Amino acid sequence: MNAQEINKYFVNEIKELIAANAKDKVLDILSALHPVDIAEVLDVVDMHEAKYLYYLLEEETAAEVLLHLEEDTRERFLQALSSKEIAEIIIDNIESDDAADVLAEMDEEKQEEVISFIEDQEVAENIVELLSYDEDTAGGLMGKEMVVVEMNWSVAYCIRSMKRQAEGLDNIFSVYVLDEKEQLVGTLSLRKLLFSTTSAHDKIADIYTPVDMIWVEPSVKAEEVATIMQKYDLAVLPVLSKEGKLMGRITFDDVMDVMQEEAEKDYQMISGLTEEVESTDSVWGHTRARLPWLLIGMLGGLASAQVIGLFDIEDNVKMAMFIPLVMAMGGNVGVQSSSIIVQGLANGSFKELSIAKSVIKELGVGLVNGFICSVLVFGICYLFGISLALAMTVSIALFTVIIIAAMFGTFIPLTLNKFNVDPAVATGPFITTTNDIFGIFIYFVIGQMLLS
Amino acid sequence: MNAQEINKYFVNEIKELIAANAKDKVLDILSALHPVDIAEVLDVVDMHEAKYLYYLLEEETAAEVLLHLEEDTRERFLQALSSKEIAEIIIDNIESDDAADVLAEMDEEKQEEVISFIEDQEVAENIVELLSYDEDTAGGLMGKEMVVVEMNWSVAYCIRSMKRQAEGLDNIFSVYVLDEKEQLVGTLSLRKLLFSTTSAHDKIADIYTPVDMIWVEPSVKAEEVATIMQKYDLAVLPVLSKEGKLMGRITFDDVMDVMQEEAEKDYQMISGLTEEVESTDSVWGHTRARLPWLLIGMLGGLASAQVIGLFDIEDNVKMAMFIPLVMAMGGNVGVQSSSIIVQGLANGSFKELSIAKSVIKELGVGLVNGFICSVLVFGICYLFGISLALAMTVSIALFTVIIIAAMFGTFIPLTLNKFNVDPAVATGPFITTTNDIFGIFIYFVIGQMLLS
Repeated sequence: MNAQEINKYFVNEIKELIAANAKDKVLDILSALHPVDIAEVLDVVDMHEAKYLYYLLEEETAAEVLLHLEEDTRERFLQALSSKEIAEIIIDNIESDDAADVLAEMDEEKQEEVISFIEDQEVAENIVELLSYDEDTAGGLMGKEMVVVEMNWSVAYCIRSMKRQAEGLDNIFSVYVLDEKEQLVGTLSLRKLLFSTTSAHDKIADIYTPVDMIWVEPSVKAEEVATIMQKYDLAVLPVLSKEGKLMGRITFDDVMDVMQEEAEKDYQMISGLTEEVESTDSVWGHTRARLPWLLIGMLGGLASAQVIGLFDIEDNVKMAMFIPLVMAMGGNVGVQSSSIIVQGLANGSFKELSIAKSVIKELGVGLVNGFICSVLVFGICYLFGISLALAMTVSIALFTVIIIAAMFGTFIPLTLNKFNVDPAVATGPFITTTNDIFGIFIYFVIGQMLLS
Repeated sequence: MNAQEINKYFVNEIKELIAANAKDKVLDILSALHPVDIAEVLDVVDMHEAKYLYYLLEEETAAEVLLHLEEDTRERFLQALSSKEIAEIIIDNIESDDAADVLAEMDEEKQEEVISFIEDQEVAENIVELLSYDEDTAGGLMGKEMVVVEMNWSVAYCIRSMKRQAEGLDNIFSVYVLDEKEQLVGTLSLRKLLFSTTSAHDKIADIYTPVDMIWVEPSVKAEEVATIMQKYDLAVLPVLSKEGKLMGRITFDDVMDVMQEEAEKDYQMISGLTEEVESTDSVWGHTRARLPWLLIGMLGGLASAQVIGLFDIEDNVKMAMFIPLVMAMGGNVGVQSSSIIVQGLANGSFKELSIAKSVIKELGVGLVNGFICSVLVFGICYLFGISLALAMTVSIALFTVIIIAAMFGTFIPLTLNKFNVDPAVATGPFITTTNDIFGIFIYFVIGQMLLS
């Protein structure tokens, strides 16, 4: 592909040209770049260089670039620009959903100031409306740019109206058709309009495609919107109010971003990270994201120490050897179970399966895996000359721990989900830590019974 | 949204109607359903019921339904259908990329038979071409359905040709414009064609949009295709040969599926699952996905037992208490580091950061986190009346283990990636297990130095 790779040689070349104030050469380079790539350059150069580049751009490109900057770079730009400039650059050149997202990053005072500079009253009202929705809902994802026609329009009038509506739109994915009660009844295919042998006097009612459309209400969660659009292969999804009024539309690109964010969120959780962190972030950023879970793990480790302290380990010193085995197995089984539940909840495959059924299934899996591992461990211990009593202790403990970890791993995320807490929390170090403590307790209880 | 929820009450209603052979009522229900939802019903009912429903469907709907079935249900359907039926149903009604995907699921003999029944020679050639690409590449994702026009065509001829080309296409996302050398030079906007005041004698050259297009070669990996389409917000991406010939196009819906699969693959790996498994799968399916990693964890645990056995734990029994702490911290830090690297490699944020720099960054983070945790643990041990020597041992070991785990967690995925192995492998139980063994070894070495 011919997208420019933004590597350090390329960036250094630009930096040198800026230092030499070689405007024409810089412009040559910029004009060959996609706005997304220009944004990537602005993200990595110094702020004064970024501004130098920014002011060379045409308004439309500048707006696109601003939109694709990383959040902290954009914040600095927005601070440097006046409210009037922001209103002119952003509002005129980018779609309402993106404009609302940029405005949502500002404090309320600046938001209001920018909105007051928007000349087109309808645009301003749209932005205010979009800002009122929670960003993690269909309302927060939708944009107001749509081409809407009415059933009783003639083809000729329709084309004139569409032409007006389509001005400034990047893409027309769907033309929505409303009936006389302003209810959405279908779509109009541009292709049909273009290729069919309709006369200018025909009515839209004769040529539109009536469909039982898939739609969402503004309050539907972003994650669910993504699932729906992916499931039905939709490039665009209409958003309707409870009363059936067409409020806006959500496009595939916003939903791709939601999918990515959701995947990253779950992945972070299971990796023991409390916030998004990239390898390029500062040491402090990394510490902030990682330390909280490490401290939970640490407290868990100290609790385990207390548990071991409860027992007379002096009498059965060799038990210590198998602490890592019991812990590792409990941890692995717990993470496996909980992650399967979390993914099942995320992709909706739990519709038919009740909590009780899931727990019973996990019990079955735990029994099979537990049995196989325990028998193997017993055999290996025996081969290694471990005493029969200790080998029995280890394999019985292992069996029990595997089953209990599977139960915990199933039950905890399902319960969290029931109380509207993100079940992915359960996949983090929390569940491993709980399993560690319980596992060790069980191991020593069994040891005390069999070994003393 | 009005998509029918496929719950068990709904399914039971359909089952009862089938049992009563109430064809009309079943048809009423089916006609109100989206093909994707019909597929969901077919996936959960018995095979004879699924076939009953399938044969009630119109050909176009049937093809869509077939496409959206789960793989094992589809396999049974494809076995039940003759090669001629498959050729007629699938090839005529679904896009070439989906058709090739379905064919790829059959054995070669059946593939060839189906292809021999395709009447349109061009369609058959397209399918054969698509089957030749690796399914995880741009070639494997692309379809051949495109609307292509030439620069020197008149608007009138162009519209006639487009009408012919667009027949049977679901969506026209882009109309590609070629120059006289058959090189892709831009796109033609349907809107422009529809709304501009061009005369029928104008040339396409006058009205097309010349763009530096983003494109990929057929060999580009599916994951990279997804990254590109998401980055540049593309609904459709052209695929060009090395020589610049337009080979096909990839649409956003296929890329959404790739994104989901990639996310699930990484998540599986870090959860310790060897293959995709859903909560609704059989106990045997679960066992097969989970047991391999559990066995690795088990061998690791036994190796740790051997390591502990090397030392005279009898002399310092209290050391056993802190085995869980050392293990848990090593494991958590290792998973954090490796998952950050894996995500960084996946989203391309490593372009500027070399391996050396990443390792140094991780060293910094490890030092900070290690220092904080060690000091805290030392303090807590002291408060709990642990001997000074043991408290020192634990906190020095913890510090060392955190740093080493961070190094391992960084170095292993980066190395795997260098040798073209999926770096996500490193996030699985493999790295935790290695960390466990090393961590315990370090703990006991330090213990032997400080405590005896």
